[in-house]
Amino acid sequence: MLEPERILRLEEDAVVLLDQRVLPIEEVEVRCRTAGELADAIRTMVVRGAPAIGVAAAYGIALTASTGDDLAEADRVLRASRPTAVNLAWALDEMRDDPSFEHARRIHTDEVGRCRRMAAHAADLFAPGTRALTHCNAGGLATGGYGSAVGALLTAWQRGLLEHVWVDETRPLLQGARLTAWELEEASIPHSVIVDSAAASIMAAGEVDCVITGADRIAANGDTANKIGTYSLAVLANHHGIPFYVVAPTTTLDLSTRDGAAIPIEERDPAEITARFPARNLAFDVTPAALITAIVTENGVHRAPYSQSLAGVGATA
Amino acid sequence: MLEPERILRLEEDAVVLLDQRVLPIEEVEVRCRTAGELADAIRTMVVRGAPAIGVAAAYGIALTASTGDDLAEADRVLRASRPTAVNLAWALDEMRDDPSFEHARRIHTDEVGRCRRMAAHAADLFAPGTRALTHCNAGGLATGGYGSAVGALLTAWQRGLLEHVWVDETRPLLQGARLTAWELEEASIPHSVIVDSAAASIMAAGEVDCVITGADRIAANGDTANKIGTYSLAVLANHHGIPFYVVAPTTTLDLSTRDGAAIPIEERDPAEITARFPARNLAFDVTPAALITAIVTENGVHRAPYSQSLAGVGATA
Repeated sequence: MLEPERILRLEEDAVVLLDQRVLPIEEVEVRCRTAGELADAIRTMVVRGAPAIGVAAAYGIALTASTGDDLAEADRVLRASRPTAVNLAWALDEMRDDPSFEHARRIHTDEVGRCRRMAAHAADLFAPGTRALTHCNAGGLATGGYGSAVGALLTAWQRGLLEHVWVDETRPLLQGARLTAWELEEASIPHSVIVDSAAASIMAAGEVDCVITGADRIAANGDTANKIGTYSLAVLANHHGIPFYVVAPTTTLDLSTRDGAAIPIEERDPAEITARFPARNLAFDVTPAALITAIVTENGVHRAPYSQSLAGVGATA
Repeated sequence: MLEPERILRLEEDAVVLLDQRVLPIEEVEVRCRTAGELADAIRTMVVRGAPAIGVAAAYGIALTASTGDDLAEADRVLRASRPTAVNLAWALDEMRDDPSFEHARRIHTDEVGRCRRMAAHAADLFAPGTRALTHCNAGGLATGGYGSAVGALLTAWQRGLLEHVWVDETRPLLQGARLTAWELEEASIPHSVIVDSAAASIMAAGEVDCVITGADRIAANGDTANKIGTYSLAVLANHHGIPFYVVAPTTTLDLSTRDGAAIPIEERDPAEITARFPARNLAFDVTPAALITAIVTENGVHRAPYSQSLAGVGATA
């Protein structure tokens, strides 16, 4: 497992991020000395993954407080850096009353602790010999350590329940082919990268027992925003009678958002897909709760109706 | 429209192919002087698309006959170059009795003629303002001129029925983002490239009126092999109540194959996806007939049950 401080950490004069844009070819660190630099790093996806973005923002606030820069302005630029993940807003709200280094580091430690607990709950859903399919990277890189959906795979592997992982490459930025495959390799878990559009064929061939992903924001009714392509997998899993699991910490819950229609979906630069022709680059999609077999948080396995099972499930330390 | 002889042609001493691996960045021609060189070009996808492969193979036989090389050996290496498209076997069978330049050129001309006729039939399925989604490249590059599914889009555009085309980029070799977008640009048809996994979101947003693709082989019961990702689109279209059309010449029909389970599916080098991690690279998938709203050939619009509507529909000149 990647140590949390290797993924991101707070030093005296900088938030230090492992550059996720160039992994696994290069392991390079990016040092952000101001909230503005950190916001740029979040926007350009040096650090990505909803919980990891939240931790990074907490570190950015602590750094700003220590340098005496404008905290309100730091909050503003960080909050605006990416729109879909709700963990960013959650962490900034958390830091308002106590912008200390200790508090920010506790947020990081707590997030990794939530991952281990939710992974244990999610692994309870695995039967022996499970062949799981995952999308994007919901691993330690995305959460600041251990991971949500990939954390569940790690725990299932340790329990001897996991046979193989199908890794969607996850266009356009290839978080699956670069980051998830790398994390699975480090854990010696058997895996195969596939192009995103091959998932349906692998399902039809009877080679997928469950689909498991992370989330960027979960609305009160269970509708879930996650990396583009997640909704597609949920429809395909439903068609093939395969369970579809979402694993995410309670910091990803947004009970103030009623349903998926109210979740802002980021559109990114079309040049991430092609610089030569017109393109539309939706970064996320929304999976309706009706297609989700279970949502797993650190508090347990939640089932439909989610408006009831998620009610009152707040972020816990 | 790309002139057929710009896509591929027979000269006195070579089959000349527009190199589809480097389009649209470069327009380079590859000259194949033997059947072996041509088989390599087919295998490495210098020329691709089921009907275009068939035409190329016919040219390869004519070239072999003119140079006095071993025709049986030429037939063998060309037939083995790619397994899924049936047009290759069809064209080689056609050339057996008459391996002349004239016959090979007539096969090419006939294939383009079929495209124009099937495009006219398919465009009859379009209502005004249609926003179509297509996958891979079923354009002139794939057929030797005009195209099957893209031909239908060209004809629908000329009739004023087409509003927009969503172009799946089509990983791993990006035939959509490189070839289809290029053909649509040449025809001034409004289009947007999307990552393959975004199709579901665009459908859910109500921005897709039909999905239209080509085919590499159609079995007697209507099951259709096509570029990986096609089956995924068919499931998604079905889920969203969107018609799913296959446009292909009768040379793509294989009435001797009972159903999709008997169609050989090519697996290609995993390095086409990632050279760094294990990968599985299925080049095609099979869409069950039940998910196909209509199959359009040069003979008209065929509907389920396809075992009846396709029976007796042979290749026509």
